This record gives sequence, C-alpha cells and structure tokens, in this order.
Amino acid sequence: MSNGDIFTGEVIGTAILILFGAGVCAAVTLKHSKAKASGWIVIAFGWGFGVMAGAYTAAPLSGAHLNPAVTVGVAVDTGDWDKVPLYILGQLIGAVIGAVLAWALYYAQFAANADEKTALPTLGVFSTVPEIRNPVANLVTEIIATAALVLPLLAFGKVDGIGVGPVTEGGGTVVLGSGISVLLVAFLVVGIGLSLGGPTGYAINPARDLGPRLAHALLPIPNKGTSDWGYAWVPVVGPLIGAVLAGLVFNAAF
Amino acid sequence: MSNGDIFTGEVIGTAILILFGAGVCAAVTLKHSKAKASGWIVIAFGWGFGVMAGAYTAAPLSGAHLNPAVTVGVAVDTGDWDKVPLYILGQLIGAVIGAVLAWALYYAQFAANADEKTALPTLGVFSTVPEIRNPVANLVTEIIATAALVLPLLAFGKVDGIGVGPVTEGGGTVVLGSGISVLLVAFLVVGIGLSLGGPTGYAINPARDLGPRLAHALLPIPNKGTSDWGYAWVPVVGPLIGAVLAGLVFNAAF
Amino acid sequence: MSNGDIFTGEVIGTAILILFGAGVCAAVTLKHSKAKASGWIVIAFGWGFGVMAGAYTAAPLSGAHLNPAVTVGVAVDTGDWDKVPLYILGQLIGAVIGAVLAWALYYAQFAANADEKTALPTLGVFSTVPEIRNPVANLVTEIIATAALVLPLLAFGKVDGIGVGPVTEGGGTVVLGSGISVLLVAFLVVGIGLSLGGPTGYAINPARDLGPRLAHALLPIPNKGTSDWGYAWVPVVGPLIGAVLAGLVFNAAF
Amino acid sequence: MSNGDIFTGEVIGTAILILFGAGVCAAVTLKHSKAKASGWIVIAFGWGFGVMAGAYTAAPLSGAHLNPAVTVGVAVDTGDWDKVPLYILGQLIGAVIGAVLAWALYYAQFAANADEKTALPTLGVFSTVPEIRNPVANLVTEIIATAALVLPLLAFGKVDGIGVGPVTEGGGTVVLGSGISVLLVAFLVVGIGLSLGGPTGYAINPARDLGPRLAHALLPIPNKGTSDWGYAWVPVVGPLIGAVLAGLVFNAAF
Repeated sequence: MSNGDIFTGEVIGTAILILFGAGVCAAVTLKHSKAKASGWIVIAFGWGFGVMAGAYTAAPLSGAHLNPAVTVGVAVDTGDWDKVPLYILGQLIGAVIGAVLAWALYYAQFAANADEKTALPTLGVFSTVPEIRNPVANLVTEIIATAALVLPLLAFGKVDGIGVGPVTEGGGTVVLGSGISVLLVAFLVVGIGLSLGGPTGYAINPARDLGPRLAHALLPIPNKGTSDWGYAWVPVVGPLIGAVLAGLVFNAAF
Repeated sequence: MSNGDIFTGEVIGTAILILFGAGVCAAVTLKHSKAKASGWIVIAFGWGFGVMAGAYTAAPLSGAHLNPAVTVGVAVDTGDWDKVPLYILGQLIGAVIGAVLAWALYYAQFAANADEKTALPTLGVFSTVPEIRNPVANLVTEIIATAALVLPLLAFGKVDGIGVGPVTEGGGTVVLGSGISVLLVAFLVVGIGLSLGGPTGYAINPARDLGPRLAHALLPIPNKGTSDWGYAWVPVVGPLIGAVLAGLVFNAAF
Repeated sequence: MSNGDIFTGEVIGTAILILFGAGVCAAVTLKHSKAKASGWIVIAFGWGFGVMAGAYTAAPLSGAHLNPAVTVGVAVDTGDWDKVPLYILGQLIGAVIGAVLAWALYYAQFAANADEKTALPTLGVFSTVPEIRNPVANLVTEIIATAALVLPLLAFGKVDGIGVGPVTEGGGTVVLGSGISVLLVAFLVVGIGLSLGGPTGYAINPARDLGPRLAHALLPIPNKGTSDWGYAWVPVVGPLIGAVLAGLVFNAAF
Repeated sequence: MSNGDIFTGEVIGTAILILFGAGVCAAVTLKHSKAKASGWIVIAFGWGFGVMAGAYTAAPLSGAHLNPAVTVGVAVDTGDWDKVPLYILGQLIGAVIGAVLAWALYYAQFAANADEKTALPTLGVFSTVPEIRNPVANLVTEIIATAALVLPLLAFGKVDGIGVGPVTEGGGTVVLGSGISVLLVAFLVVGIGLSLGGPTGYAINPARDLGPRLAHALLPIPNKGTSDWGYAWVPVVGPLIGAVLAGLVFNAAF
C-alpha cells in the first residue's frame, strides 16, 4: 500500500463512516426527520453500517483503520509506528468531510431547528456529549469501551475463515478488511453502541469525535449552541488509553 | 448474459424489491396492519431485506442492478453504456409490477383506509415524499445518499472474499451478486435508510420512485390523494447525479 | 438421505422453528413477559432466527424444508413428488411439538393471563389471525407472501458462493442449507415478516399455522378462547398456491 | 490447546460477553443512560453481539465455550469430561470480571440511581430475575431455552461451509469458532432472547448468572438491593439439565 493509497483510503472511508454516523444522529434527533425519535437501536445500527460502508470501501486502499485508536492498537501489537501519523491525518480530514456532508444532507432540518423557539443544541449530531458530566467516570467509560473494540478486532486476525484480519504487509502497515471480517467489526460496533454507549455516547474513536467537533465549530449552522471544547479531550484521550491497554492484553494473551 | 436474461432478471428482481419496499411502507403506515406504527427500524430493514431478496434472485440472470443509479454508476466506471437502456427498462417495468403486488397484498388495508373520515394520503406507500419540501435541499440529499450507495458498492468489487463485485462479463455487462456481496449491499441500504433517509425518504433509485408513482397514478385506489408529479423529478435526477459523482470518485481513487 | 433422517430432521427442525415463533408471539403479547409490547421488529427477528436455528439443525438430516410450501415449490421445480408426504408429515408433527414446548416455556404467563378479568385470546400466540377478516383478500396476501419466500429461495440455488441451495441428491430429495444459505433464508423470512406480514401475520407455511392450531385446540390452556377453525384453510391453501406459482415462475425464468 | 490457553481464552471471552450483557442491561434500565427504555430488541442484540465479540476473541485460544452449559453439552456429545472443570473455572472468573467492568463503565449511572428517592434494585443489571417467581415453571423455561441453544450449536458442527463447529482436537477438547459459525451462534442467542427470554430473562448459562451475582454481592454499589440468592440455583441447574438433554437428543438424532 502506497502512502497515497493509505491517505486516500482513510479520508474516503472515514468520511463515509461519519456521514452515516452524524447522519443517524441527525435523523433521530432533529425535527422534520422521518426517523425522529426512532430510538437507540437506530443509532447503533446506523453507526455500525457506517463502519461497514466506510471500511469495505477503504479496505483495498488502506486496510480500513478509520480510527486512531485502531491505528494505535495495531501499532502496539506490531511495534511499527511509522505510518501512524499518516493514518491519523487521513482519518481527521475524512471525519471533517463526513460531518460537512451530513450537515449538507440535513441542511433543511438544521434550518428548521434554528427557527424553533426552543432550538435544540446541535452538537449532539456531531460529537459525543456525556449524560452525566464527570471527567473521570467518562474517561473510564471510553477506555473500557474502546478496549472492547480493539481487543476483539485484533483477535479477529487469529480466526480462520473470516477473511484477513490484522496482518503485516509491505512496509509494516496493516491490512484489515477482506471476507466477512469487516461485517463482524461493524456488528461489534453495533454491540458496543447498544451495550456500552449509554454513559457517553461511545466515541471510541478520537477522529470520530474531534473531526465533527471541528466541523461543528466552523460550519455556519444557525443557533448551533456550544461546541463544548472543555469535554473534547475525553473522547480523544480515553480511546487512546483503551487501545494501548487492548494491545498489551492482546500481546500477553496470544 | 443474454438480453433476455438481463431483462427478465431486472424485472423480477426489481418487482421483488418494490414488493418488499412498498409493502413495509404499507405495513407501518396503514391502519389494520399488524406492523402499524412500528417505526423507522422496520422501514429500513424491510427495504434492506427487499434488496437482498430481489438481488439474489436477479443475480444469476442480470447481475442484479435493480436501480438505474447503479446501472449508471457502473457504466461510468466501465465506460460501457450499451445495455444501460435495457437495464433501466426492465427496472421500471419491474418497479410497477412490484407496486401493484404490494397494493394487492394490502388490498383490504387500502379499502379500510379509504373508509376513514380522515383517509391518509396513500402516496407515501408508493413513492418518496420529503418532510420539508425544498427542491434544492432535497436534491442535495438524494445526491449524497445515492453516492453513499454507489461508491461503496463499486468498491466491494475490489474486496477479496466477499463474492464477485462489479466485473465485466460477456459483452460488457456487469455482474453483481455472488457470495455475501448482496447481503452486504442489503445492509448498506439498511444503513442508508437509518442514517440518510430522514429528509426525503431515500429514493436513491429512480425506478424505485418513478415506477410506484406510475402505479399509484393508475391503480383504482379509493381516496388515494395526489400522485405529486411536481416532485417526481427530484428522486430521478438526484440519484443519477449522485451515481455519476460516485463513479468519478471511484475511478479517481482506485 | 434416508427416510428416517428426513423425518427426524423435519420434526426437530420444525419443532425448533415453532418454539421460537410461537415463543416470540407469547413474549410480545402475554402479560408478565419481559418482552411485552416490544413490537413488530421483535416478532419478525424472532421468527427469522427461529428459521435459522431450526434449518441449520435440520439441514444435515433432511435438507431443512420445514414448510410444506417449500417442499411443494421444490417438487414443482424438480418434478419429483415421491417424498413430499414424508416431509409434510414430519413438518406437522414437529410443529405440534414446537407449540407444546412454547406453551410449557410460557406456562406461568398463560396461567396469569387466564386469571385476568380481561384474559386475552391466546390463539394469536399459536396461529395466524387476520387483522381484517376477508377470505379472498387474506388468501391473496398469503399467496403473494409465500411466492416471495419460495421464488428467492429457489433462486439461491443458482447463486455461487453462498453454500448449496436446492440440489437434487440421492433419490430426488433436495438439499438446502450449507454455507450462509440458511442465514439468507432467515433474513428473507425477517423481511417477509416486516414487509408483508401486516394483513394476516404471514403464515407462509401451512405447518406453521395448522400444527400450532391443533396444539391450541388440544392443550389445557385456561380461558384460551376459540381455535378459529373457520379460518384455518386460508393459511394452508394460500401458501400452497403461492408455492406452485413461484415454482412455475422459477422454471420459466431460469 | 494448552490448559493455559483454554483458561485465558475462557476468562477473556466470558469477561467480554458479560461486559456487553450486563452493559446492555444497565444501558436500558438505569437513568441517565442514552439507551434508557430502548426496549427488548436492544437487550437481545446487545447480548448477541456480546457473544460474537467474546467468542471470536476466545476461539483461537479455547474454542470459545463461555458457558458451562455448552461445555457440558459438548462433553455429553464427545464423552470427554477431562477439561470440564478448567473451562467452568475460567468462565466463572471471566464472568465476575466482566460484571465488574460493566459496573465501572456505568459507575456514574449507578451513583445517580442510588441518589434517587426510588432507587431501582440493581440486581437486574447483573443477573436474571423472573417476571413470575415460580421455581418449577422457571426451571422448565431455562431447561427448554438452554436446549434450544445447545442442540443447534452442536448441529452447526455437521453443516458444511460455516466454519468449524464442534470438533475433537488434541486431548479431547473441542473447538468452536472459525468462519461464520460464531456469528450464527450470536444470532441464535439473539433469537433465544427475543423468543424465549420473556419469563426469566434467559440465563441459559450458569456462569452468566452466577458470576455477575457474586459481583453484585461483593461490589460497593450504594442502595443496591438484594442479591436474591434464593433464586440463584434455578439459572444454574436449569441450563445444565437443558444442556444434557440437548446432548442426548443430538446423539440420538445424528
């Protein structure tokens, strides 16, 4: 995989992931959406199938990390950190693009929301907002939830017959994503959403939170409310710690 | 694949798709249905499994496009436009047949609806109706949502171990649909519904909207309300633009 | 496949199918169930995963028909009717057993229901009850819905890479059920439930309706209400007609 | 598989399973959770994807039983009981760890619950609580529901093309878990939840109930309510009986 392919794959794949993810949050929360108030099952499957769509698209180009926590977890496992910055840069840019696309797709809904006397804050469409604001508890939640993503994902590479999991290829980069492996990761993310997303909204991916938060801050959304930068470090630091822990447990167990 | 097989496959496959799709809209919206008001998750999975049912059935005959946007996206990718009209003709005829079957299956429910003092408009069972009528915004929604279908679908052809994706075979036509590839496309459509369907009801397929709209206009449904031809161009033009854009991005990236 | 294996497979597989199917109807409708009023999505996936559980279990023994409509559709396709009675006998016996198991599993809930002043009629746990009673319309619904099961199911046999679909083996019996084919049929049944089940509750299987209706008539359920034998012919005749039509369309198209 | 790998695999896999399972119960029942009151479909898929996550992770190490009932059912089938204690020990320890992780992840939600005037009893997050307390009926429910897990699971080993099911390998231990087999078991557990979980909350796994109950008794959860040890034998004894019955039926039928 060339650097160009890695960058292109991560940008496109993460953009698709966030388009679906921010899209489903808009679908469920904004007025004048046909999916208004359709519940947590919709949120979780919307994000999961976004993983599926983005990761199968990116897989032949970059191995479909789409998440700095995955990139770091894989690097802890393989010991190869050379292309980590390239992956993360692509992921962040892709996440911003995906958030802009979701905003464009729900443009009329954002406009209608702003016209309401009681306009909803719009940050929840883009980034995670904890139900109970408690940085330590929120951090613990993100650490455990991300470890519950990265450890199984690394273990998939040891399972026969589900397509290639994490393997080393050309220059130490790592390939995910042939066979049904991506579908399994998508269902894993659905499960994390359903089971572990209650307290913080399961960032489990620094790019998934930071990119859309940047987009929220920059986009001309009327009545958009705060971008809440005071919380922004939690969904970055928590997932990275969780990924490192998962990589260490994986290396110890396998 | 012979022209006869292509035509037969597209007619049967699209009829099945629309039977399930219009069926689930009837199931959720009409009174005296056991699925009345069962929510957006039902709509999205009903359409998705309709894609699965129709596309696996059509796959051995026509490669299972079932959607002019897919046909056009594939043609942009391959440069071969010869059989595009044949595909689209089959898709439109199949879509009309599927809508008629859904109406027959829900015949008693349509009759009961017409007897109500406040009969619901029935177009929503057949075709898409935007939540906020704004042609430019609606068009943008359909463009992005269709690109989010066609780009991953083309990329599936580059992924190992999921069955054949888009490949050129005999005379330039293109085959989709062995292995799990069709199931993945079905889940992709579920995800598009959940995440991107809020503003317009996600036509993402000109035949899916135009065929049932024709059926709605022609069928003797009592108290059926308008067929809303003023909106009909949006779910035709939007998906075609989105498909062309997806084909161009795919060719640039891969 | 020996006659003994076919019989055993169809009995066990259909019993599992009906245990899950009648079970989910009890779960959603009876009081003092944790799944009370959890909606149509639960009904449809409960039946679908019941198909998956029963059919993968029966597949190595009998090829997993579990449904006289499937048996008849396959016979129309292959022209071999020799073992049709054996299959159907196994299916009916299995369906009765499955209904008895579901009743035993929900024993306390049936007892509690009978104690209520307004005890619910219990037939809906066992057999289909149309929302609008109109024999012609109900028959048409069952015909179309069953054809939408049998036609794709036969077509799966033509698709590469999803495991074996309908093939002729030893003495003309037919094998379903290796690879992912059974999972696809399970999702197909989920889709039929979501999309086409609104009017009649989608019998699409004479054994699925008749066996549990017999069990309902015979079991000592207090306050159980009518077994509604006047409707019992519809979910038997409709699916058989639908299966024959699907077999004929399949033979014409493929 | 070495004894160390078996132990490690069962501990990690069961911990992941219970993290997701107790997690989804917390998500749906505790206040200040984004998934509050999101329904039975969320519960069932949360547990099912927990099976998927834990079992694919454990598969290369231990064959992924994660459940004493599976271990016993396999031993009845193979006649090899040597490693049964080792499996069960790992499962119990893993279940306790998983419950502690779920508690840590929902720490702020447990604290907020305790502050309410009407604090909910918290046992339901950890262990099963029957809707109608009737030991005989509850036992029958658990027996049938567990047999509906173990019999199909054993039969999966006879199906071609879904990855390896139960096979004997090195020293008589048994391997589950390559290919799509684990995904199928996950969906099987979703189906059991949807269809058969209404009366008792479907333990179908002694470790799944006993481990978290121990954790509930030991953890410093404020206002936690009873650990209900009087019921604890039902979800241990019932699943073991069901597993033995399933093993006997399997050996007779196949």
